[in-house]
Amino acid sequence: MESRRFRLGFAGFGNVGRALARLLLERRDELAHRCGLSFEVTLLASARRGAWIDPSGIDLEGALRDGWSAAPRLPEAIAAAPIDLLFEATPLDPHAGEPALSHLRAALGRGVSVVTANKGPVAFAARELFELARRTGAGFRFESAVADCMPVFNLFEAAVPVGRLLGFRGVLNSTSNHVLQAMARGERAEEAVREMQRRGFAEADPAHDLDGWDQAVKAVIVANVLMGRDLRPADVERTPLSAVDPGWVRAQERSGRTVRLLAEAAADGPARVHAAGLERGDFLASLRGFSLGLTLDTEPAGTINVSSVEAGVEQTAYGMLADLVAIRRGRLRVTTPLLDPA
Amino acid sequence: MESRRFRLGFAGFGNVGRALARLLLERRDELAHRCGLSFEVTLLASARRGAWIDPSGIDLEGALRDGWSAAPRLPEAIAAAPIDLLFEATPLDPHAGEPALSHLRAALGRGVSVVTANKGPVAFAARELFELARRTGAGFRFESAVADCMPVFNLFEAAVPVGRLLGFRGVLNSTSNHVLQAMARGERAEEAVREMQRRGFAEADPAHDLDGWDQAVKAVIVANVLMGRDLRPADVERTPLSAVDPGWVRAQERSGRTVRLLAEAAADGPARVHAAGLERGDFLASLRGFSLGLTLDTEPAGTINVSSVEAGVEQTAYGMLADLVAIRRGRLRVTTPLLDPA
Repeated sequence: MESRRFRLGFAGFGNVGRALARLLLERRDELAHRCGLSFEVTLLASARRGAWIDPSGIDLEGALRDGWSAAPRLPEAIAAAPIDLLFEATPLDPHAGEPALSHLRAALGRGVSVVTANKGPVAFAARELFELARRTGAGFRFESAVADCMPVFNLFEAAVPVGRLLGFRGVLNSTSNHVLQAMARGERAEEAVREMQRRGFAEADPAHDLDGWDQAVKAVIVANVLMGRDLRPADVERTPLSAVDPGWVRAQERSGRTVRLLAEAAADGPARVHAAGLERGDFLASLRGFSLGLTLDTEPAGTINVSSVEAGVEQTAYGMLADLVAIRRGRLRVTTPLLDPA
Repeated sequence: MESRRFRLGFAGFGNVGRALARLLLERRDELAHRCGLSFEVTLLASARRGAWIDPSGIDLEGALRDGWSAAPRLPEAIAAAPIDLLFEATPLDPHAGEPALSHLRAALGRGVSVVTANKGPVAFAARELFELARRTGAGFRFESAVADCMPVFNLFEAAVPVGRLLGFRGVLNSTSNHVLQAMARGERAEEAVREMQRRGFAEADPAHDLDGWDQAVKAVIVANVLMGRDLRPADVERTPLSAVDPGWVRAQERSGRTVRLLAEAAADGPARVHAAGLERGDFLASLRGFSLGLTLDTEPAGTINVSSVEAGVEQTAYGMLADLVAIRRGRLRVTTPLLDPA
């Protein structure tokens, strides 16, 4: 198979970036053999360590082991580094999408493809970023922004190439779902959160998970990208978990139902995050532990459910790897009605 | 978008073929605009009506309305008709895969791409057909052979481009699942079958659904195509529904469990179709009515579940349309370890 060499850059080298680096090293031979894809890392940057640029290729194993310290700052590096594709995984400010949004504008604007796990830029500026990427011919994919490597955009592209999405509803935040499960067992929400923090499953500040903001952002991404909507996270009606009565959750449980905090939108209706009592046999009720899932109502392909079980940071990284392969295979940008086919 | 014109042939024009013809007519503009795909039908053939060949294009609407009668036989037509792609949807003999298998050999052998909803050829001769297709450069896809348009091969291709399938288990036959649900309610299996036949949901002879053979064939397809196994349907351990004790099904139900007839295989273990009592919150237990679903255990993408809700013949046809679009987009053949990447 003809091989294509990618010069890769990392913006952000936290848990996700490091997991992706390990995955790339482990799968180097498989990527070459199965996907015709070889690579070298020529930019490695984080806010803390600065931007390490080396056109002849950085020793990624060494960087994983020893870290680095470099003088250039990230914005300047993204504007100038010799890279073909940028993995964007900097820490998220979910209320404005920065600094990731600026990184994406800079990279896409100069024709550098972007793969990101960052929700903010896609939620706040999907249309602008798609248009920019198309103008410069850059790739732009973000499978991991919604639910780790659970296929959402890849699924819809492959399975619903004609027709359209009529609406969706999903469990797209594992922390709030886990807390609801604890409440259903009669445990206190605060204790469930603390337990998850102790075990490393919840953020130090899980506010955006528990107040529904994380799911609102994800609902906006799916609605805008797959249905061509023009929503912003603040447009999403939102029920925080703190407004959900534990007594009601337990009563639902006793009557054979399961409560889930759902993110949903229709092609022509409001988007919302709300608590719903589901029949126990419902697909979305079957999402336990840290599993995430999504129901897609399409025409004419009907209703398709997809879920991932207990995905973690390695699966987030894997979704980014899958995006890299998609770009290698010529699927440059997520298919979206925001862009006219051309 | 650059347009590519396909000369299409139909082998078989029963419920699925006719639904596909209607779908192609309805979506002609969308296929052109979104997928750069235009078409004319130059072969329309069924065992009963003979093979209608017209290099200048057949009036498909007229054929749907009025039928046709033609002298040439199907095998000769497939060997010679001016077609780029054959939709194979002839009635299935699930014990040998004929006559579909001969149709596929003839078409692929002369470089004509094939999209089929027929299980037999894939279950009995996947490796041979893939190799033949690659040799002649033909496309070969069969999304609808397993579960209508529920994405199985499309999903795996898009979502797990590196790594591998470790095993799977699924509810891949709606008739047997429906009968089990009736048994769980205390109804008699025979009555449930008759009711489904009255409503047009079950075959006149549902034996292959109820004896597990249909699921065994599908298990072989998934195991061979996605895990590179070399199984035949007779290799699959099989529990027919008639061997499932209704009393046990009801007892499982009373103890909060749900019985499903599962098709499953691991990368390095036996394949089997067997009745299992699942926790009611299990993903596969959530498949009610005529819904189908599949759990894919992968590395390193983790566990992915997918299901389709109450799909019918239009969704089977839609899966074939999605395969046509995949071929148009250069995804010629289902990705499989049966073929070395080249």
